[in-house]
Amino acid sequence: MIISMRLHATKEEVAQVRARIEEFGYKVHSIEGEERVVIGAIGMGDVTACLESLEAMPQVEKAVRISAPYKFVSKEFRPERTEIKVAGATIGGDEFVVMAGPCSVESEKQILESAEIVAKGGAKLLRGGAFKPRTSPYDFQGLEEEGLKLLAKARTLTGLGIVTEVMSDRDVSLVAEYADVLQIGARNMQNFALLKTLGKCGRPILLKRGLSATVKELLMSAEYIVAHGNPDVMLCERGIRTFETVTRNTCDIGAIAALSEMTHLPVILDPSHAAGKRSLVPALARAGVAVGADGLIVEMHPHPEKAVSDGAQSLDPKQFAKMMADLKPYIALWKQARMAETAATV
Amino acid sequence: MIISMRLHATKEEVAQVRARIEEFGYKVHSIEGEERVVIGAIGMGDVTACLESLEAMPQVEKAVRISAPYKFVSKEFRPERTEIKVAGATIGGDEFVVMAGPCSVESEKQILESAEIVAKGGAKLLRGGAFKPRTSPYDFQGLEEEGLKLLAKARTLTGLGIVTEVMSDRDVSLVAEYADVLQIGARNMQNFALLKTLGKCGRPILLKRGLSATVKELLMSAEYIVAHGNPDVMLCERGIRTFETVTRNTCDIGAIAALSEMTHLPVILDPSHAAGKRSLVPALARAGVAVGADGLIVEMHPHPEKAVSDGAQSLDPKQFAKMMADLKPYIALWKQARMAETAATV
Amino acid sequence: MIISMRLHATKEEVAQVRARIEEFGYKVHSIEGEERVVIGAIGMGDVTACLESLEAMPQVEKAVRISAPYKFVSKEFRPERTEIKVAGATIGGDEFVVMAGPCSVESEKQILESAEIVAKGGAKLLRGGAFKPRTSPYDFQGLEEEGLKLLAKARTLTGLGIVTEVMSDRDVSLVAEYADVLQIGARNMQNFALLKTLGKCGRPILLKRGLSATVKELLMSAEYIVAHGNPDVMLCERGIRTFETVTRNTCDIGAIAALSEMTHLPVILDPSHAAGKRSLVPALARAGVAVGADGLIVEMHPHPEKAVSDGAQSLDPKQFAKMMADLKPYIALWKQARMAETAATV
Amino acid sequence: MIISMRLHATKEEVAQVRARIEEFGYKVHSIEGEERVVIGAIGMGDVTACLESLEAMPQVEKAVRISAPYKFVSKEFRPERTEIKVAGATIGGDEFVVMAGPCSVESEKQILESAEIVAKGGAKLLRGGAFKPRTSPYDFQGLEEEGLKLLAKARTLTGLGIVTEVMSDRDVSLVAEYADVLQIGARNMQNFALLKTLGKCGRPILLKRGLSATVKELLMSAEYIVAHGNPDVMLCERGIRTFETVTRNTCDIGAIAALSEMTHLPVILDPSHAAGKRSLVPALARAGVAVGADGLIVEMHPHPEKAVSDGAQSLDPKQFAKMMADLKPYIALWKQARMAETAATV
Repeated sequence: MIISMRLHATKEEVAQVRARIEEFGYKVHSIEGEERVVIGAIGMGDVTACLESLEAMPQVEKAVRISAPYKFVSKEFRPERTEIKVAGATIGGDEFVVMAGPCSVESEKQILESAEIVAKGGAKLLRGGAFKPRTSPYDFQGLEEEGLKLLAKARTLTGLGIVTEVMSDRDVSLVAEYADVLQIGARNMQNFALLKTLGKCGRPILLKRGLSATVKELLMSAEYIVAHGNPDVMLCERGIRTFETVTRNTCDIGAIAALSEMTHLPVILDPSHAAGKRSLVPALARAGVAVGADGLIVEMHPHPEKAVSDGAQSLDPKQFAKMMADLKPYIALWKQARMAETAATV
Repeated sequence: MIISMRLHATKEEVAQVRARIEEFGYKVHSIEGEERVVIGAIGMGDVTACLESLEAMPQVEKAVRISAPYKFVSKEFRPERTEIKVAGATIGGDEFVVMAGPCSVESEKQILESAEIVAKGGAKLLRGGAFKPRTSPYDFQGLEEEGLKLLAKARTLTGLGIVTEVMSDRDVSLVAEYADVLQIGARNMQNFALLKTLGKCGRPILLKRGLSATVKELLMSAEYIVAHGNPDVMLCERGIRTFETVTRNTCDIGAIAALSEMTHLPVILDPSHAAGKRSLVPALARAGVAVGADGLIVEMHPHPEKAVSDGAQSLDPKQFAKMMADLKPYIALWKQARMAETAATV
Repeated sequence: MIISMRLHATKEEVAQVRARIEEFGYKVHSIEGEERVVIGAIGMGDVTACLESLEAMPQVEKAVRISAPYKFVSKEFRPERTEIKVAGATIGGDEFVVMAGPCSVESEKQILESAEIVAKGGAKLLRGGAFKPRTSPYDFQGLEEEGLKLLAKARTLTGLGIVTEVMSDRDVSLVAEYADVLQIGARNMQNFALLKTLGKCGRPILLKRGLSATVKELLMSAEYIVAHGNPDVMLCERGIRTFETVTRNTCDIGAIAALSEMTHLPVILDPSHAAGKRSLVPALARAGVAVGADGLIVEMHPHPEKAVSDGAQSLDPKQFAKMMADLKPYIALWKQARMAETAATV
Repeated sequence: MIISMRLHATKEEVAQVRARIEEFGYKVHSIEGEERVVIGAIGMGDVTACLESLEAMPQVEKAVRISAPYKFVSKEFRPERTEIKVAGATIGGDEFVVMAGPCSVESEKQILESAEIVAKGGAKLLRGGAFKPRTSPYDFQGLEEEGLKLLAKARTLTGLGIVTEVMSDRDVSLVAEYADVLQIGARNMQNFALLKTLGKCGRPILLKRGLSATVKELLMSAEYIVAHGNPDVMLCERGIRTFETVTRNTCDIGAIAALSEMTHLPVILDPSHAAGKRSLVPALARAGVAVGADGLIVEMHPHPEKAVSDGAQSLDPKQFAKMMADLKPYIALWKQARMAETAATV
């Protein structure tokens, strides 16, 4: 920690601050400038509590932590990539993985049709919501367990893995029975009761970034899951909320690049929610491959104009097939770069 | 709904769109401009589903709803203010109510001391967290049920009502046993599983606005609670997340003014989280009274520099007493305006 | 400056960084933690250049300045408030000053009528744009010099001071001939060519905060003007751009509180642009007085529905008169607080 | 325009609104719903003024324009891409163009060395600032005309075109004498006095998006330049300001995709300002090619750690060469897609 004292703080005030820091078990070094004293605190202790305490002291101008607030998810803790094996695919390694499907599970016919199209296009996992977070209480809330059963049926028929959302700690074990990957929605990224439960669920997690969550907060939420016992977390950039409305959200492509320096966890891009408009999805998908994401999660609906949710951003089967074909040379370049990297670190 | 077609859409395309709208049970009127056709849809139907469906049609440029997406919470539905009676106070009526206390319940001594100071200053409710949402899994997570018991003890001794947070639908009935008002934290504003459970909890709710939630989304979350059976919801502005860092959050004072035109529910300002810095709290509290909020929720700690959380933004006992004294003439003006309004509507 | 090295930086790397800092004339102290070395730099030098240089070194994790980047405008440099005398009023002292008038000067009749209403309501300055920054090239761009002449005529007839916008360094001397206060629009807050010219214009400046400018950037822009020779700068909060659309901009009331701790310059609130909607203006105006701003700048039009610009946020004469009357007791409280403060510092 | 009346507006109020719309020369159609009347206005008139006027009427709930506020820059007005020929390159056609160089022109040696490296890497234009917009009045403000002369010298020696910034309408003709492309900085995107002057400058313009400018505002600023006589405008995405701080700005990659549907003007990505950190630049550059931008503008400095500005985000010569080499297969894919598109439209 670095603590800067207010201008012209007295010696006594500096001594009080030093004493407080030492109470928390840190060693203290102070630097006396002409205007201001700056204090460095070194060691191991309860950083958050110490910072809170110091910031509450009137003679302190600012107290800043130097070390990252997360540990298990950081690249410094573990330099090798986390590889997550699911449904015959390895996410986070040398394979670029596509997950696709409709926003909601609507009927047996719809989800089986979707699964077939998605599998044919080369996706390895099928997405589809059985529990739906909806802004309005009057909107379709999902088929719940019935929807989970339909997803399981689609898996049996196609061999695709299943990614589906869980919204409450109460439903984690139920959803984990059916799903291969549990998705946590953007609005639940800091539902800490839910995050803790995921530590013991025995399934990989796809953790979506909150609408206004910073990259560090996303990593802290992943840290919750890992610290509670589950190392298999994928992070998902799905666009953040800004002043811009020409797209539904603002696709933070730079966050993907930054995350690849900060963490060993795989990062997935959701171009559908980022764009909010079907025609922009393929371009964002290409950008996601090029920037170095580990995979995509894309909305595809057999009949978007009949979708109960997210129809405007869902690709139709033909568009999905074209996008998957167009992505091939980009994925080939991606694979080449990834293998060169692996070769370099061996 | 108003639907604008793309430029130069053909007659056939317009007909398809009209047909789709009629399937949803609306009456259709179209206006043919020189460049573009615009369609109006009138009637009662599943607006969200219809909009989703239209936006997914390629010939549609934009589909916009005219009516508000919420109903029970709107002023159009119910013009008179909702008054919530709790702990001898009436929130939302002619009384300006202050809730105060520490961020977390830390110990019996701390919470009883806090309660005494808070009661003496004129607050009617004691705030204090027993379940704490923390960004880091390594930070203090609250005393849980033990904390609730301490709050109940403070109530017995002082007569203050208790406001405390609930973080999971699983804990709602437990917290409702001890608390007078259940607080929903900003990060849970769209935890829909939790919101539904609150409909049946039998306690008034203090619903904090999410960090990047729009005013309409806040109202939709309140609508969830009301639609599930609980009409006693207070909305809480606690600052939103923006690019500015000189304050912890950006106090959206205009939202309070806007809410008073949109809803009959009481609106509470939390100047502590908005400011993030103790010295700015009294000025924001004054602004909250002046703008017409129904009350304040303020962090006060007997020894802020020893607080386990939010010390920097907690007033100390002396500052709290001074703030309460300084607010008096502003509250008198507030009361005068409120009573004039009541007189005018009778 | 505080410089934290990357984890496990070598001794040689630390030495290189120390050497670089010393080249810029600073004294260096380093603190060796178990994981990481942190370096403090003390003294006087070209901070920005030094920080830029250090951040470009690969072995440096982060380089942070401790001291504020502005000087003349800071409260540490000058603890007493800057008082600006204009049109018989003193802004920044014990007087709360209201400026009001239409968005644009449209005609002689309109501006003279406005001036009369504004003067009668108790405002001391008349606002009105002769040069208009408009998002679209097809919108009304202002009457230019003709408009300035009409403003001057209004001054002669009413005794009001004139506040009007200047958009280019080329027009500064022309506008300064007619105006008592030169207004810099939000979109020009970082038009540095313009800011420099204002240093020599001989008129007080009303500097509007940019739509997404931080409080520190606002102070830096004021510093430009002061450093180039003009100490009479008023800062104006007019709402910032966020994700919220229920108001036109988000009124950053906390920034006004923060500024009063950071600078000796007067701060003016523009509730009209912040709200964007006439019915919300009086509530924001009250909040502005209560939070401790030094004045208001408000849009009033004799016939808002005929205004060429900003009609929706302009008060009509009756609403303006009512707002001014309603503000009186708040202004009385403001004055009382201001005089108590003055008494305390003497 | 679509105008929705307030709930339960009377017939007389609707008639007043209709009359107002007709005054502006529009034809009026109204749709009477059960709750509310909605009015459509068709025709040609002064849309902005009409909207302003309607929104100022108390009986109007909302007035929305349907048509885009820009014309010349829209794809509907001109479906073929604008191709800008400069320094032997064609921007906006089948050629992906890279512009590179240091943030500031610092000395003859530095700029000539930069030019050589940049040319060798395959860039077609040299960037470098002679007039520098700096947040602080105490920072290096550029070599001004001396810098322009050095840039011209670099052009003579290497054949590269020159892109350099102009900050004031007063300097436009001077900068146009030396530069091939005039750059408008993000903070001047809505400096309308400057934009108007660019209409007559005879040089192509590189217009950077403002820090918090929407895509529509960017297009409106381009419209200013085109409407004043200069059709050769390139738009530049350089990251927007959001709450995220892990990158200097948030690279709005989705805006590039959206712009390609909205306008025929070329779009350039500046990955350096978007990232703010050298190590992230190559990944963003790849994303820019993949998403379909027309070119890149990249900061490269022969000795970044000695740069007077933007050192942290400048590539060094080796990194620049590697990035250019790595981009080749992506540019090949880009070219293929662009030529397929051209073939399809012929």
